Amino acid sequence: MSEYLHTAHRDDTICAIATPHGMGGIAVIRVSGPEARQCVAKLWQGADVMNITTHTAHLGHIHSAHGDVLDEVMITAMVAPHSFTGEDVVEISCHGSEWIQQQLLEALIDVGCRLAMPGEFSRRAFANGRLDLSQAEAVADLIAATSASAHRIAMNQMRGGFSRELSAVRAKLLEFVSLIELELDFSEEDVSFADRGKLSDIATAIHERLSRLANSYRNGNAIKNGLPVAIVGATNAGKSTLLNALLGDDRAIVSDIHGTTRDVIEDTMLIGDRLYRFIDTAGIRASNDAIEELGIRRTFQKLDASDVVLWVIDATTDEQQVRKFSDTLLPHCSGKTLIAVINKTDLADGERLASVVKGLAPEASVEKISAHSPGDITHLQQSISQLTDIPGVDQQTVLVTNARHYEALKLACEAIERALNGLRLGISGDLLSQDIRECMHHLGEITGEITSDEVLGTIFSRFCVGK
Amino acid sequence: MSEYLHTAHRDDTICAIATPHGMGGIAVIRVSGPEARQCVAKLWQGADVMNITTHTAHLGHIHSAHGDVLDEVMITAMVAPHSFTGEDVVEISCHGSEWIQQQLLEALIDVGCRLAMPGEFSRRAFANGRLDLSQAEAVADLIAATSASAHRIAMNQMRGGFSRELSAVRAKLLEFVSLIELELDFSEEDVSFADRGKLSDIATAIHERLSRLANSYRNGNAIKNGLPVAIVGATNAGKSTLLNALLGDDRAIVSDIHGTTRDVIEDTMLIGDRLYRFIDTAGIRASNDAIEELGIRRTFQKLDASDVVLWVIDATTDEQQVRKFSDTLLPHCSGKTLIAVINKTDLADGERLASVVKGLAPEASVEKISAHSPGDITHLQQSISQLTDIPGVDQQTVLVTNARHYEALKLACEAIERALNGLRLGISGDLLSQDIRECMHHLGEITGEITSDEVLGTIFSRFCVGK
Repeated sequence: MSEYLHTAHRDDTICAIATPHGMGGIAVIRVSGPEARQCVAKLWQGADVMNITTHTAHLGHIHSAHGDVLDEVMITAMVAPHSFTGEDVVEISCHGSEWIQQQLLEALIDVGCRLAMPGEFSRRAFANGRLDLSQAEAVADLIAATSASAHRIAMNQMRGGFSRELSAVRAKLLEFVSLIELELDFSEEDVSFADRGKLSDIATAIHERLSRLANSYRNGNAIKNGLPVAIVGATNAGKSTLLNALLGDDRAIVSDIHGTTRDVIEDTMLIGDRLYRFIDTAGIRASNDAIEELGIRRTFQKLDASDVVLWVIDATTDEQQVRKFSDTLLPHCSGKTLIAVINKTDLADGERLASVVKGLAPEASVEKISAHSPGDITHLQQSISQLTDIPGVDQQTVLVTNARHYEALKLACEAIERALNGLRLGISGDLLSQDIRECMHHLGEITGEITSDEVLGTIFSRFCVGK
Repeated sequence: MSEYLHTAHRDDTICAIATPHGMGGIAVIRVSGPEARQCVAKLWQGADVMNITTHTAHLGHIHSAHGDVLDEVMITAMVAPHSFTGEDVVEISCHGSEWIQQQLLEALIDVGCRLAMPGEFSRRAFANGRLDLSQAEAVADLIAATSASAHRIAMNQMRGGFSRELSAVRAKLLEFVSLIELELDFSEEDVSFADRGKLSDIATAIHERLSRLANSYRNGNAIKNGLPVAIVGATNAGKSTLLNALLGDDRAIVSDIHGTTRDVIEDTMLIGDRLYRFIDTAGIRASNDAIEELGIRRTFQKLDASDVVLWVIDATTDEQQVRKFSDTLLPHCSGKTLIAVINKTDLADGERLASVVKGLAPEASVEKISAHSPGDITHLQQSISQLTDIPGVDQQTVLVTNARHYEALKLACEAIERALNGLRLGISGDLLSQDIRECMHHLGEITGEITSDEVLGTIFSRFCVGK
């Protein structure tokens, strides 16, 4: 962070369109930096921008650097440090013409502003201590959230829920360190001051909290990115047709030719308030086609990474085929929710259906559908929803949703595990202290206390421009 | 207007997303009406909205009607009558997630707001006398403007330039009326008081101003909607390929089969700061195909409505063919800018080209191109631009750009022409007065003083929601 604070581009004034792209009633252009008011003043006819009261809105005109009136606008100044970025900020609310938006940006650039990079406003807010890194990341998650659960998690993280959890752990780590340091100060005397039982209690409590957070990633990720549901089955069982029916549009190419789907196709959809990520896969069969074989290998990878498996079975097949396929599939499904979806029921009589069902394990959840029947699809969605209970979240729930945080938490967990083992083996205080410092280091990566300029660049470049 | 003022929906509070659709850093939701502050207060944690100072911005939280925190937002209140609509307005600047935008709208509806209809904020601004109708229409034009010229005209109209022109005419009409009324008051005495010469001078001045405005529509429309350029020629001369090359994308279906283009395809593009509307047409030839014949008839209609004609000629044809086509085309081109574009020059030798040129009238502008050469296309665009000089506009230029205004101006012109004729024929004062009143009526339609609820509905329904 300190590196970033000293880079040259901290001192300039940036501008960007903050509202969504396109045409609308109004649009907002955000200007932030030490010269924000000076730059706007050069283009402005209206109240005295340099002596404006913070958080007041003023109607006036913006003209181009050549003097053409560009628009009648409302400007609001947020004087440092009372702004999102902590710098002087001017927000220009203009008419929502794309032409006007572009012209205003050009005019601001003409008088010395620089076009902001993606996430640069948030990065400045972070650099100025207005947000920690996990809170800044939550702003991006909040904007991208498409369900109430994902929104609640991001909102809690943005408001500091996750940061407070980490602070609590950090306080415990500091307690551990202070006990150890006391011992180290007297290390010449080769006496062990710190109560190893007490240290062990503290480390156990830390480990318990950190592993709870790390383990919450599975649910957090499912809520944020959708619970992965693999659609598998023999070739031509109707997997792609089912995916299209579930998603309600034509995502996958459908044909009657065996082996049409070679790429893995996926998309998310909400059922109730839960987000599911449906993954269409290549049909599993013995194949001489090298490309298709690669597809089948990918199918097994995707299957292994899924929480739910929809096994699509052609209703016109028979018991023996189902049994054979079952032998291939089941070893990949332990611990997963498996739903056998018997498709094309409109093409099979009762006898044939009974034979297919006989091939399934008796405990399997079975759904009989025609992928072309909207009623059947709705019923299948309800079954999926009932069989896969993602726990509800409220606005106090802290769940890890970010892969970067998860990685850091796992490393922090490992460090604290080493400390616990060390305590058991009676290793010296300075070695213990090293493990604890490593644990703190990884937590610092989450909040941004310890993060390289490069990592920050990667994080903020994923943000939208204007945020 | 008075009818609209008394309709029930004047009293409720409306809300809408004012910024463009989609995801962005921030979005703005606008609430307007007598209960705007009360509605927001029910969902708001922060400064006291009911006692807020007008034009001040406040950070706080918006929660749903069920108490869930939806977002951290900035609200700005504009207290009546100091707002765009003239009513109490609250603008909520929230995070630009589509989910949050929808949830905030739902929460506002839960506490008694109504979702605004397209243009309803502008309609209220008009109803409350904040803008006249031509100014409100200019707001929509301003948002849609894609060139500096179109923007300048709309900006001038929004700032009242056109309204002031109409006021000046209206003042002259009132002068005329007051002279006549004086005469009518003494009509029993059968004496003509008003100086007919003076009346005639006034009416002539009015007619001159109105017809200048009405005539400006041709340029105004060309600036707003693009100068119409018809692309015509024999079948398979490469008209669609040329259109695609000019527009830089694949708008028209191109094939080697004669008569591929049956629909009229058009699109606009800027060359320099001028907007051109290029219109691809069906190839002209004797055809037995009924559908194609209909296309050819449409080609002549489009040709007649164009200002510029690009006649595309296959370089591999010959003098006789060109001469024959010329006989068909030229009668439709009088008063237009005609450019003969000899295409496929890469396929013809010098002798062949010379023969083609010989078939053209000696005064024709000739461009030799290959539609596949970007350099040739750029050169053709420059030639079009040089040969079609749309007069420049500055921020004082008043041009009529709206078909509705043009219609009203034409009718106003006709009324004043009748008055002028009447003066020449020595008709009575009350008949003259009737013509003048009709003229004023049509001008009142432009500014909205005389407009039915139905007409207003049609006008504002073309606006975007949130404006």
